[in-house]
Amino acid sequence: MSNFESPSPASSSLSAAQLPAVCILGLGLIGGSMMRDLRAHNVECFGWNRSSATVEEATKEGFDASTDFQATLERAEASGALIVIGTPMTVVGAMLDAINEHAPSCGITDVVSVKAAVAAEVAARGMEERFVGAHPMAGSAQAGWSATLEGLFDGAPWVITYDLAAATDAAGEPVPERWIEVFSQVANLGAALGSQLIPALSDHHDASVARISHMPHLAAYAIAAAGEAGGPLAISLAAGSFRDCTRVAAAAPDMVMSWCENNTEPVLTALDDVIERLTAARTQLATEGTAMDLAKTGQIARVRYEARPAHRPIFRLRVGEGGWINQLKLAESVGGQIDVF
Amino acid sequence: MSNFESPSPASSSLSAAQLPAVCILGLGLIGGSMMRDLRAHNVECFGWNRSSATVEEATKEGFDASTDFQATLERAEASGALIVIGTPMTVVGAMLDAINEHAPSCGITDVVSVKAAVAAEVAARGMEERFVGAHPMAGSAQAGWSATLEGLFDGAPWVITYDLAAATDAAGEPVPERWIEVFSQVANLGAALGSQLIPALSDHHDASVARISHMPHLAAYAIAAAGEAGGPLAISLAAGSFRDCTRVAAAAPDMVMSWCENNTEPVLTALDDVIERLTAARTQLATEGTAMDLAKTGQIARVRYEARPAHRPIFRLRVGEGGWINQLKLAESVGGQIDVF
Repeated sequence: MSNFESPSPASSSLSAAQLPAVCILGLGLIGGSMMRDLRAHNVECFGWNRSSATVEEATKEGFDASTDFQATLERAEASGALIVIGTPMTVVGAMLDAINEHAPSCGITDVVSVKAAVAAEVAARGMEERFVGAHPMAGSAQAGWSATLEGLFDGAPWVITYDLAAATDAAGEPVPERWIEVFSQVANLGAALGSQLIPALSDHHDASVARISHMPHLAAYAIAAAGEAGGPLAISLAAGSFRDCTRVAAAAPDMVMSWCENNTEPVLTALDDVIERLTAARTQLATEGTAMDLAKTGQIARVRYEARPAHRPIFRLRVGEGGWINQLKLAESVGGQIDVF
Repeated sequence: MSNFESPSPASSSLSAAQLPAVCILGLGLIGGSMMRDLRAHNVECFGWNRSSATVEEATKEGFDASTDFQATLERAEASGALIVIGTPMTVVGAMLDAINEHAPSCGITDVVSVKAAVAAEVAARGMEERFVGAHPMAGSAQAGWSATLEGLFDGAPWVITYDLAAATDAAGEPVPERWIEVFSQVANLGAALGSQLIPALSDHHDASVARISHMPHLAAYAIAAAGEAGGPLAISLAAGSFRDCTRVAAAAPDMVMSWCENNTEPVLTALDDVIERLTAARTQLATEGTAMDLAKTGQIARVRYEARPAHRPIFRLRVGEGGWINQLKLAESVGGQIDVF
């Protein structure tokens, strides 16, 4: 778990009460767990999944799920639902097309692990005014309905994007009312689930997760492989440092690649940074007999990380009211969270 | 803790009974903890430390410690003690010179984290016949007498070197009797402390620890530094993968450099391996949009590491008797341990 602990979400019930119906496309770990939480909060919630096995399991537990894609979207449109795209990145474009056709007035969010790639699909269809991206940073190595559970998002970071607001604000234009409404819905959704709302521009989010998750996974793969290349004696002597450095190398290549393949530029930048640091250490060790520069820089970074405050700074704001875009930017600049009231 | 669990060391009491007096030079975490264990096993044990504060602390607890270096070595000579060099690598040469002068007939071992650098100091003085290197792989980030504790070595790997035996055997010469005697003493010492004896040539040991400890520490420094370079948003979003990958980056630069600076070639080799793997992944990601090759190789390596047997293969041997050198080589080739009877 993160060093950041959950302050009790006092606004949680209020947020749930303010939510429209929620339509979840894709009932995997994230979408399915969200459905559990929303029912627990008495929020109208229904969803679609491609696999009939998943829909049967959900239905057996009394959840409102269907394999009929078009009917689900038409119901979303009829009930003014907020649509959550909980599918893999590969089909996000197709989801947006279908939403355009069958649910043309619904607000849209997504729970994909990368944000710029989703935003690009949204922009390609001119759907920016109805879209606010999200990344609930919860989950596990497990997948599917059987892995879903109540409370998955409680206390977890919930990144919420605000690209359109930043862009219009920078251009001296008013932020579209329609977008502000969707932002409120998505913020309320995250707050209702007990998450900590962290505003971020899509590309900043992607650059950040490249550095603190995607690149470390690749580095762990490399460390594990180089360790095994040392042969049985090396593996026999491996202890805590090897075990911890390579723990995430057990992660499924398909999952890690679904992040990296949709976040290539930021991952390349983060990889280059690590490769450069290791190469500089290599050069110093070969020429001066020490790699003290990297050791000192790296230790300071880790010690600062350990010493970070237990709570993120909280920026209170009223959506759409004076200065709120600046509050979002300020919160992002310090990795802070927002409290929407 | 390692996946390898300690089989109950049935020969432990026997080993302790067979031990000569033990003279420990340097009463830090390793040397001091060894002194605690040996007293608990009723083995005559005395030691020297440069710092009078340490000697006072040890003496206050009833241990036999002194700041008089020459007197300690003369006592070792008079009592036929096995000398354990528990000082930093930087003063190993000076220790060997002093042992040559004041304790010319004692067997010698050491507990330094690298083995080839120590072996080189030994060879430079023509002391190979009285020396068998060791690396008890136990300890913590803490240091000094206050960190010492009983049972530190119980169940831990205890690397024991056999360079001279391998060299003479390869040359078709008999292994010197004097060396065989010292090997027995060092093996008995490790067994008496409950450790698992893992034979290794000095350079194989160093290449192994470079890959499973020294390089991972450098990599953790680089990952931590590259993460922090992402700024406050990145650190705010950092969770389990970043935390575990960078845990050892909290290690003191002086300690990590004491390993790397005395093990430069193997660390350079291991670093090159990691840099090459990351660079290949970078190239594949930039050109093919995926880094699947590294992901698959790395995951397999980690899964194999997790799936290794709970116990190392055990090779039983009688020191100095027919085929024992081959048993040492076989044990090393599979990362196995030896049971000396």
